[in-house]
Amino acid sequence: MSERNRTVPRVGMVGGGQLSRMTHQAAIALGVDFSVLAADPADSAALVCGSVTLGDDRGLEDVLAFTKAQDVVTFDHEHVPEDVLRAVEEAGGLLRPGRAPLRFAQDKLSMRTRLAELDAPAPRWRAVSEPGHVEEFARETGWPVVIKASRGGYDGKGVWVVGDGSEARAVVERAAAEGVPLLVEEKVAFRRELAVQVARSPHGQVAVYPVVETVQRGGVCHEVIAPAPGLSEDKALRAQQLAIEIARALDVTGMLAVELFETEDGVVVNELAMRPHNSGHWTIEGARTSQFEQHLRAVLNLPLGSPRTNAPFTVMANLLGGEDPEVYRRYLHVMAQDPEVKVHFYGKEVRPGRKIGHVTVTGEDHRDLLRRARAAADHLRGDDQ
Amino acid sequence: MSERNRTVPRVGMVGGGQLSRMTHQAAIALGVDFSVLAADPADSAALVCGSVTLGDDRGLEDVLAFTKAQDVVTFDHEHVPEDVLRAVEEAGGLLRPGRAPLRFAQDKLSMRTRLAELDAPAPRWRAVSEPGHVEEFARETGWPVVIKASRGGYDGKGVWVVGDGSEARAVVERAAAEGVPLLVEEKVAFRRELAVQVARSPHGQVAVYPVVETVQRGGVCHEVIAPAPGLSEDKALRAQQLAIEIARALDVTGMLAVELFETEDGVVVNELAMRPHNSGHWTIEGARTSQFEQHLRAVLNLPLGSPRTNAPFTVMANLLGGEDPEVYRRYLHVMAQDPEVKVHFYGKEVRPGRKIGHVTVTGEDHRDLLRRARAAADHLRGDDQ
Repeated sequence: MSERNRTVPRVGMVGGGQLSRMTHQAAIALGVDFSVLAADPADSAALVCGSVTLGDDRGLEDVLAFTKAQDVVTFDHEHVPEDVLRAVEEAGGLLRPGRAPLRFAQDKLSMRTRLAELDAPAPRWRAVSEPGHVEEFARETGWPVVIKASRGGYDGKGVWVVGDGSEARAVVERAAAEGVPLLVEEKVAFRRELAVQVARSPHGQVAVYPVVETVQRGGVCHEVIAPAPGLSEDKALRAQQLAIEIARALDVTGMLAVELFETEDGVVVNELAMRPHNSGHWTIEGARTSQFEQHLRAVLNLPLGSPRTNAPFTVMANLLGGEDPEVYRRYLHVMAQDPEVKVHFYGKEVRPGRKIGHVTVTGEDHRDLLRRARAAADHLRGDDQ
Repeated sequence: MSERNRTVPRVGMVGGGQLSRMTHQAAIALGVDFSVLAADPADSAALVCGSVTLGDDRGLEDVLAFTKAQDVVTFDHEHVPEDVLRAVEEAGGLLRPGRAPLRFAQDKLSMRTRLAELDAPAPRWRAVSEPGHVEEFARETGWPVVIKASRGGYDGKGVWVVGDGSEARAVVERAAAEGVPLLVEEKVAFRRELAVQVARSPHGQVAVYPVVETVQRGGVCHEVIAPAPGLSEDKALRAQQLAIEIARALDVTGMLAVELFETEDGVVVNELAMRPHNSGHWTIEGARTSQFEQHLRAVLNLPLGSPRTNAPFTVMANLLGGEDPEVYRRYLHVMAQDPEVKVHFYGKEVRPGRKIGHVTVTGEDHRDLLRRARAAADHLRGDDQ
């Protein structure tokens, strides 16, 4: 395409997961030349994208070679090591977001330090290098506290809620043995969890979406209600302003997702992600501009699209794998039952608990939408049988 | 994908144009295994689709081989010859729509004959095998009349409006020399042109979309307004019922587009298309279920999605190529001017007058939406400079 329309840019996305898959859908409409760097031909995006480079999506050699073939490179995950990002930028690769902002999404200690400098509301926290640090901290905040791996983690885990000194000691000693840096945070007494998406372009233009409620179970996002029902205008504005301030201060380009806790009197920042995010999937049907199109517009330095909603409420429910791998045959019932449910299947092998898709419903009454989205997700998983 | 999720069907689309390209976007969300048979790697769908078979998308050998690799095959154009379709069906290929209904989309004489049997309102017409037939016909209807090639055409043309006997004679003699069968139709005194989309599944389920107004200039669709502003409920219902009756009587599976003339006292059928159609592109943003998703659901015999609209009005404007091939660099201005306009670019080489994309806007006031869609399309074409 680039040869025929020389001004059409080549955008590459590192990582072949569902975020790349859905960005590919948006890239088709924009007519930009979109490629993914995927580790495996069975990766979600690699199954459908016309231009796939197979390679190590965290390794210097393959990321560098991929970047050289693109005008701009972005990411569907935060797992490219900082030294790889640095080498790619030094070689002239245009990364959006760049290495400097990505560090704050990759390293929770850096993120907490930077947010503290910005006076952004946050849980109390401190760095942990020995078990005693957790106990000192808990004397101020009370137990339980939340220990987090600053980057990485072990046994596939990066967050531990610990109830006393001996539990804390076990986590800290194991992490020390694995070389995993830790921090401890107070366990925030929150009403509910929120998230807000903001896009920022290199020009500095920003577009912020309505604040959403995220319903988590066992540390996994199950549903998103957009906008968050009954959220006060004060808190909603505060959350949106925070997202904009953070995007600016950290020089984010592309989508930034800010995960928040709603407390009695405000909001506090929980996590950041610098890419399209699960809490923004509702925008595909629910907003004029989906987060995937918006991410592309932002990293391409195009004017941003309108984040206006298409309906009073949109509810998204994640589709988690169940015991039965044959999800498709359940479409028959789900689609017959509710012709307005939109199914997004990621083409991934079904494993229990794995995010293999999502469903979205738009309408007026968020309780009704939540019930319908849950019914569809439960049925697709096979939980209602 | 099929090996990992054995029940996921393989859908093939014959033809690599923009209809395949947009069907690919819908197939990604449904998670079905979608392939296109494209004549050229630079075809609109071939540029973006993960599974592309290059071959003659009208020839027996390639269509047959493609069909054998699919569970169901559908089409983005009507140009596969009837004998090829017959051979593919005889070899066990599952075509949706099948050869029998497709004949009525390929052959206007068959279509007019069949619609007459159904008592569907239509222009007066007759088959033409010698110049005298046109003159006899015009004595009943008055001049001008419309001569149409029943199939094919010559010099890239298939429709001629002729004002007298000598003009008619020239067309008929030339067509006879080329072996092109003709019919003549009265020139309907219409208020405006309409279209209606209906989906029908092999089960017999139907879902019909609101009737839209199509704005044609020089025989080319420029804009679509959904629903058609100010259309009486009687005429709207009549058009929708007609579409459903035709889909049933002709055993259509997938999308059927019925193009109509609105007259003083009713509607008359102009043309049929058995595939997603330009007059239905508005459904991507404007309806719960896009015509592309709906077409897939129908040909897969899945329950159909809701055709409900997302906004009071949606306006689509085709993007026709202008003199400047560099459309992308115009995005900057168009997107800055109207952040709610959705751009769909087909990735095709820009040639003057060629359909290279479309834009869509949704909202409340159809006049405002039409103005905005036109402004965006004009600017992308370079006409406003």
